Amino acid sequence: MMKEMLNNVRKTAPLVHNITNYVTVNDVANILLACGGSPIMSDDPGDVEEITSICGGLNINIGTLNARTIPAMFLAGQKANELGHPVLLDPVGAGASSLRTNTAYDLMEKVQFTVIRGNISEIKTLALGEGTTKGVDADVADAVTEETLSGAVEFAKKFAAKTQAVVAITGAIDIVADGEKAYVIRNGHAMMGKITGTGCMLSGMMTAFLVANPENSLEAAAAAVCAMGLAGERAHERLAPEDGNSTYRNKIIDEIFHMTGEILESGAKYEMR
Amino acid sequence: MMKEMLNNVRKTAPLVHNITNYVTVNDVANILLACGGSPIMSDDPGDVEEITSICGGLNINIGTLNARTIPAMFLAGQKANELGHPVLLDPVGAGASSLRTNTAYDLMEKVQFTVIRGNISEIKTLALGEGTTKGVDADVADAVTEETLSGAVEFAKKFAAKTQAVVAITGAIDIVADGEKAYVIRNGHAMMGKITGTGCMLSGMMTAFLVANPENSLEAAAAAVCAMGLAGERAHERLAPEDGNSTYRNKIIDEIFHMTGEILESGAKYEMR
Amino acid sequence: MMKEMLNNVRKTAPLVHNITNYVTVNDVANILLACGGSPIMSDDPGDVEEITSICGGLNINIGTLNARTIPAMFLAGQKANELGHPVLLDPVGAGASSLRTNTAYDLMEKVQFTVIRGNISEIKTLALGEGTTKGVDADVADAVTEETLSGAVEFAKKFAAKTQAVVAITGAIDIVADGEKAYVIRNGHAMMGKITGTGCMLSGMMTAFLVANPENSLEAAAAAVCAMGLAGERAHERLAPEDGNSTYRNKIIDEIFHMTGEILESGAKYEMR
Repeated sequence: MMKEMLNNVRKTAPLVHNITNYVTVNDVANILLACGGSPIMSDDPGDVEEITSICGGLNINIGTLNARTIPAMFLAGQKANELGHPVLLDPVGAGASSLRTNTAYDLMEKVQFTVIRGNISEIKTLALGEGTTKGVDADVADAVTEETLSGAVEFAKKFAAKTQAVVAITGAIDIVADGEKAYVIRNGHAMMGKITGTGCMLSGMMTAFLVANPENSLEAAAAAVCAMGLAGERAHERLAPEDGNSTYRNKIIDEIFHMTGEILESGAKYEMR
Repeated sequence: MMKEMLNNVRKTAPLVHNITNYVTVNDVANILLACGGSPIMSDDPGDVEEITSICGGLNINIGTLNARTIPAMFLAGQKANELGHPVLLDPVGAGASSLRTNTAYDLMEKVQFTVIRGNISEIKTLALGEGTTKGVDADVADAVTEETLSGAVEFAKKFAAKTQAVVAITGAIDIVADGEKAYVIRNGHAMMGKITGTGCMLSGMMTAFLVANPENSLEAAAAAVCAMGLAGERAHERLAPEDGNSTYRNKIIDEIFHMTGEILESGAKYEMR
Repeated sequence: MMKEMLNNVRKTAPLVHNITNYVTVNDVANILLACGGSPIMSDDPGDVEEITSICGGLNINIGTLNARTIPAMFLAGQKANELGHPVLLDPVGAGASSLRTNTAYDLMEKVQFTVIRGNISEIKTLALGEGTTKGVDADVADAVTEETLSGAVEFAKKFAAKTQAVVAITGAIDIVADGEKAYVIRNGHAMMGKITGTGCMLSGMMTAFLVANPENSLEAAAAAVCAMGLAGERAHERLAPEDGNSTYRNKIIDEIFHMTGEILESGAKYEMR
C-alpha cells in the first residue's frame, strides 16, 4: 500500500503550490523534487489563484505569515477547494501568538483542508484552544508517548471527524487519522529534531502524495510520514561521526531522492488503531 | 575565450545586486561567491536604487514577485540603465500567471536588459505571447531537441534582435544568442533538473560574468552557461551512489568554487550557429 | 570561561527570536539548533511582540529589511527591552544605503542593544557616520590588521561605552569589547569569507549565548565569536581537496553541532586588551 503511494508520485510528477515560510523553503522545494514532485512557490494575493489553478495541490504553511501573505492563503485555499485540489495546512507556531492561532482558525473555517499536519502542541491549540506550543516546537508536556498514545489517537480521530480532514500529528510517535482509523507510525530518528524544517519538508512532500493518490488521502498522508521518518533513519545510519545536523539535512533529502516503493514498503513501521 | 570570461570575474570580484526569489536565494549568493563575485540582496523600493548604484550589475528574478518587490524591480532596473550597468532578467514562471507574464512584459518595456535568461517556455511566452509554461519548469512540448534546434536558434536570434538583449534559453541544449550569432551549448547533466534553483544560480553567476566582461556580453553569457553545465557534469561524476539532489547541489557550487579558466576552456562544449 | 558559556546554552536550550534576512535564514536556524538553542523566525508587526515575549532573546538583522519588517524590528526590540531580554543588532550593509544606515541609527536610539555585531565598515558607519562599506562586506581600507589593532580596540571600547552595548567587530581579527576591556580573537579561516552568512549565523548563535549567560554578556559574545571561528578552522581541516564553499558551510554548522565546552576552551585563541 505504502509502495503504491510513492510510486504514484513518481509516475505523475504532481505540481505543488507552496505558500510557505522563507526559513525552510529551499529544502521544501528540493524534497518535493526528490520525491518526484515539482514545486512552485507563490504568495502574493495577485498571483496565487492562477498559480494554484495550474497545480495539482496546495500546501499552506504559516511559519512566517505576514499581512500580505495571509490574504493570499485564503484566496489560494478557496480556489483550490473550488477546483477540488487537495489542500494541506501546516499551522506552524499556532499557540505561540494570536496572529498564528487566529489565522489557523480562520483558515480552517473558510478552507476545507484535506490534511492538517502539525506537532501535538499546534494540533491541540487548533482542536482545544489550548496546548502549550514552545515556539515552533512541541512542548514536552504535550508529547505523545506510549503512555498517552491511546488518548492521543482518540483525540486525533475526533478532531479529524470534526474537521473532515486527515489529521497528522508528528513527533517521536506519529499519528495519522481520519474519523475512523489511525496509523500509528514509529519511523524517524530523534536527531531530526535538530534540523530546521523536517516538518515543513514533510508537509510539502505530503501534498505531492495527496495529489498523486486522490482516492486515498489517509494512506497517502501516512505513507509520506513513513517516508520522511524512514529517510531520517537511513540517513542517520550513513552519518560519519563528524557529520552534524547540516549534513544530516542533505542526506535526508538524498534518501528521499533514492527511495523506492520497495524500500518504503519494507521500512515503514506502523500499526492501525 | 571562455577562459578569459571566468578569469575576469575572479580578477575584478564584481558586486552583483540581486532582486531574487526567496526559494533559491542562498544558493545564488553562494554560487556568486564561488565564481569570484560578491552578492548583495535588496528588494525594497526604498533601498534598491542606492544599492544598485554601488554594484556593478543587477539580476532581476521574478520567482516570488510581490506587490512590494515589483516596483523595486523597475526602480533598480532603470537606475542600473542610467548607470550603464548590465541588467539580467530571469522571467521565472512567465506564462504561468498573468502577474508574472505582465510584469516581465512591463520590465522589458521599461528596462533595457543586457540578457534575458529563461527556459524555452518562459522565453516563448515573452516573445510570442504563447508557450506552455508548466509552473516554473519548461513544458516538454516546447523542449529544444536536435530536431527543433535550427528553428529554436533562429527564434532566439530574432528575439535577441527585437529586444537588443542577449537571449539565453537553457535546457538540455542551451542557446545563447544575439541578433547575429548563437552559441549552441551541450554542457550539463539531466539530474540538474532535480535541483531547485539551477536556473536562478546561473542567472546570478551570469550577471557577475557580464559585469566583468562589459565588452563581451554574448561571450560572457555563453561562458556562464558552459560553466554551470560543466559544474553539473563534474559534480555528477563525483556523486557517490547514495548521494541525491541535495548533495548534488552542494557539489555543483563546490565545482564552481574550484573551476579555473583552463577547466572551463577545455570542458566547454559549444558550437556557433 | 569559554567552556561554561557554551555549556550553558546546551543546558538551557534558549529560544531565540530572529528578525533576519531571507538569504541566510536557514543557516541561522540550523546553527542555532546546532549550538543547542532553538530558533523562531517572525517579522510581521502583528506577530513579533508576542513571539519575542515567549523567547529568551532577540536577534535583529537588517540584511533584507523592508517597509513591512522595519516597524517589526522596533516593536520587537522595545518589547524585548521591556522584558529584559538580550537584544542583538546585526547592521548588515549599514553604510551601503541610507535606508540601512538610518534604520540602524534609529534602532540604536530606540532600542537598548546588548550587543552590536558587524564588520568594521558597518561599525564605523554606526560610530562615526563614515566607513566605506562595500555592499555587505567590509572594505579592505577599513580592515583590522596587526598594525591598526590598538586603535581599533580603543575605537571599539569607546563605541561600547557610548552605546552601553558590547561591540563585536568581526573580520580576520575579531574584537569584542565593552567600555573597559576587549577580547582580541584570532580564530577563524579566510575561506569563511567565501560563504554567505557566516556573520548572520554568528549573530543568531551569539544571541543564544547571551540568553544562556545573562550575567556575562561580554564573555558570552566572545565565546560565540571563538566558537564560530574555531568551527571554521576545524571544518576547514576536514575539507577534501574538491570541497568548496557550499560543503564548507555544511561542515561549519556540523562542527558547531559537535563542539563541546572542552573543544571550545582549548581551541579558543584570544587575548585581553
